[in-house]
Amino acid sequence: MTSYIRYTYPQLKTFCEDCFEKFGFTKAESEIITDVLLLSDLYGIESHGMQRLARYHNGIKKGLIKVEAKPEIVFETPVSAVIEGHDGMGQLIGHKAMNIAIEKAKTTGMAIVTVRNSNHYGIAGYYAKMACDAGLIGMSFTNSEAIMVPTFGRLAMLGSNPIAIAAPAEPYDFFFDASTTVVTRGKLEVYNKMGKPLPEGWALNAQGKGSSDAADVLKNIVAKNGGGIMPLGGETETLGSHKGYGYGMFCELFTSILSMGITSNHTHTNGKGGTCHGFIAIDPKVFGDPQEIKEHLSTFMRELRESPKSEGCDRIYTHGEKEVFAKADRLENGIDVNINTVAEMFDMCKYVGLDPVKYLGDVNFDEVNTSSSYK
Amino acid sequence: MTSYIRYTYPQLKTFCEDCFEKFGFTKAESEIITDVLLLSDLYGIESHGMQRLARYHNGIKKGLIKVEAKPEIVFETPVSAVIEGHDGMGQLIGHKAMNIAIEKAKTTGMAIVTVRNSNHYGIAGYYAKMACDAGLIGMSFTNSEAIMVPTFGRLAMLGSNPIAIAAPAEPYDFFFDASTTVVTRGKLEVYNKMGKPLPEGWALNAQGKGSSDAADVLKNIVAKNGGGIMPLGGETETLGSHKGYGYGMFCELFTSILSMGITSNHTHTNGKGGTCHGFIAIDPKVFGDPQEIKEHLSTFMRELRESPKSEGCDRIYTHGEKEVFAKADRLENGIDVNINTVAEMFDMCKYVGLDPVKYLGDVNFDEVNTSSSYK
Repeated sequence: MTSYIRYTYPQLKTFCEDCFEKFGFTKAESEIITDVLLLSDLYGIESHGMQRLARYHNGIKKGLIKVEAKPEIVFETPVSAVIEGHDGMGQLIGHKAMNIAIEKAKTTGMAIVTVRNSNHYGIAGYYAKMACDAGLIGMSFTNSEAIMVPTFGRLAMLGSNPIAIAAPAEPYDFFFDASTTVVTRGKLEVYNKMGKPLPEGWALNAQGKGSSDAADVLKNIVAKNGGGIMPLGGETETLGSHKGYGYGMFCELFTSILSMGITSNHTHTNGKGGTCHGFIAIDPKVFGDPQEIKEHLSTFMRELRESPKSEGCDRIYTHGEKEVFAKADRLENGIDVNINTVAEMFDMCKYVGLDPVKYLGDVNFDEVNTSSSYK
Repeated sequence: MTSYIRYTYPQLKTFCEDCFEKFGFTKAESEIITDVLLLSDLYGIESHGMQRLARYHNGIKKGLIKVEAKPEIVFETPVSAVIEGHDGMGQLIGHKAMNIAIEKAKTTGMAIVTVRNSNHYGIAGYYAKMACDAGLIGMSFTNSEAIMVPTFGRLAMLGSNPIAIAAPAEPYDFFFDASTTVVTRGKLEVYNKMGKPLPEGWALNAQGKGSSDAADVLKNIVAKNGGGIMPLGGETETLGSHKGYGYGMFCELFTSILSMGITSNHTHTNGKGGTCHGFIAIDPKVFGDPQEIKEHLSTFMRELRESPKSEGCDRIYTHGEKEVFAKADRLENGIDVNINTVAEMFDMCKYVGLDPVKYLGDVNFDEVNTSSSYK
């Protein structure tokens, strides 16, 4: 039985910002990191929100994430830049990199910025949305610790390798953010915390065979024992496994390859992180009137939503629509945080010298079966 | 029982070039169109090769494809162009558009060219490969007649919407070319010609329910009765249907939306084609030393091929590897053409005034059960 505790957005925002300051970040930096983290919870992507906080802190303690690191541009043209992240906080590096891409694209029409030696940067979509909020088409990619087993393989060689794309539209922007695996590792972590078996077609055990055991798969991924998550399209070519694997390669190309960084199969080995990102910004004005293009996209998305539904379904969504409603709901009604995550937050507070009760209220953990993974 | 007749590459090349000249194209144009068409057969993608020839001729006869049309640049910047295809032959428009993208990218570092009012342009990968052969990263997209049913829908609203990506590597370039549907319409046509039932998880009938009847699904697509092909990821969100649908939207964005062209749900309605394409070329030199980047990608691809195999599998492929071997094999040993396709080729020859026996030898169609769809 999983329990959740509901907090308001301002409550979690204050908590996170104070935590990140305690970790050593400036106030301005803490605000950026918190904004990325909580957009995930507002969008209903529990796997990339509050539940990552303790892991970030662990990364800082282990020295994988360097609080003082400043991203450095090591190669640059009017349409591109390569950034050396110096193992800094992913959100800060990503935020800076996308801002550079946006500024360049506003001048030249389009720009690509790649990043090496960064860390987990939260949801890829956050950065695509930054470009979209500036009236541009945005794309964002990140590689990660290997988790995707290539078609016909049994060892994870690619990350969850998400690709995010956002483009201005009314009444909802087009916002697509998805791993190129069937599901993310974060989703496995959520199932693990809930103690639920994984659906068929998601994960492989160390021998490369289908597995519903989230704990075992996660353990094997960390130990690099074999197994992992299937590409979008599953295990065989019949349903398109090679396509998900191909989109994973697309992501790798725009992250580790074009930054001369570490490919997913070598990240998080030998005590080194080395995550790579990619950011693309395109100004629609280089194709015509941005307003007309926006209306054209809006019309198509409206036609999609209004098209005939499958029997038993009452709604077709366009990408980004669910997120808009989820955000409005959570801003009004609060964000549910898994009790295990809350337990981690309490443990972490003690470590960094914050009073958890002040931020999160008095929680009786004896009433629930918690398993804080904070160490 | 399906029968094939084997022809040499030069035999089919001469046949196609002469056919296209008979259709009214110049010799130079016929060579380009043939090169695109036959690369598909050389790569083993039967669905987009010779079996399309009769359909192209039908398109010309119906006036959907205008032989005399010349693609026109209607909007241009140093990093972009929008091309009005004037309903011309897709391969000629695509070839020109990618060449423009390549030339621009060599100057500026990257370029995107979008195309509206074109026609079927063959395999998307051909154009991505053009950029790759010039030392660049290439991408190519096309929308098409609606065939993909969006998640929770029952009417096809997006095309098979392939995305192709190619990047220089040794000993095989990275070459990824895949529809964002589980499979292409061409694959359904091949199953239909073979009289084989479709695998589960590919197609939906007019009511939006799973179907293995290729003929029925194809009929419904043409009549816009409902049903079609599932997005990569299948019918529901559990295995990622919304992701394939999202990649389909990605394709639509870089084709119909940025060219202000016709979205897939409106192409091939009211006697109008209106296919849209997109082409991206990126010079790796704007990220560092192209040779180092190429070696970096080559290393990762080698590591993928050499990584541990799943039980019962003896090989992991990287994208583009199968195509290299298929091409070498077919150049040496010939190309197998489905007897139904050969029958169409014979029928077409009579129509345009060519002697089929001169090109294709004497074929006794009575021995096989043909069903030429040439009309």
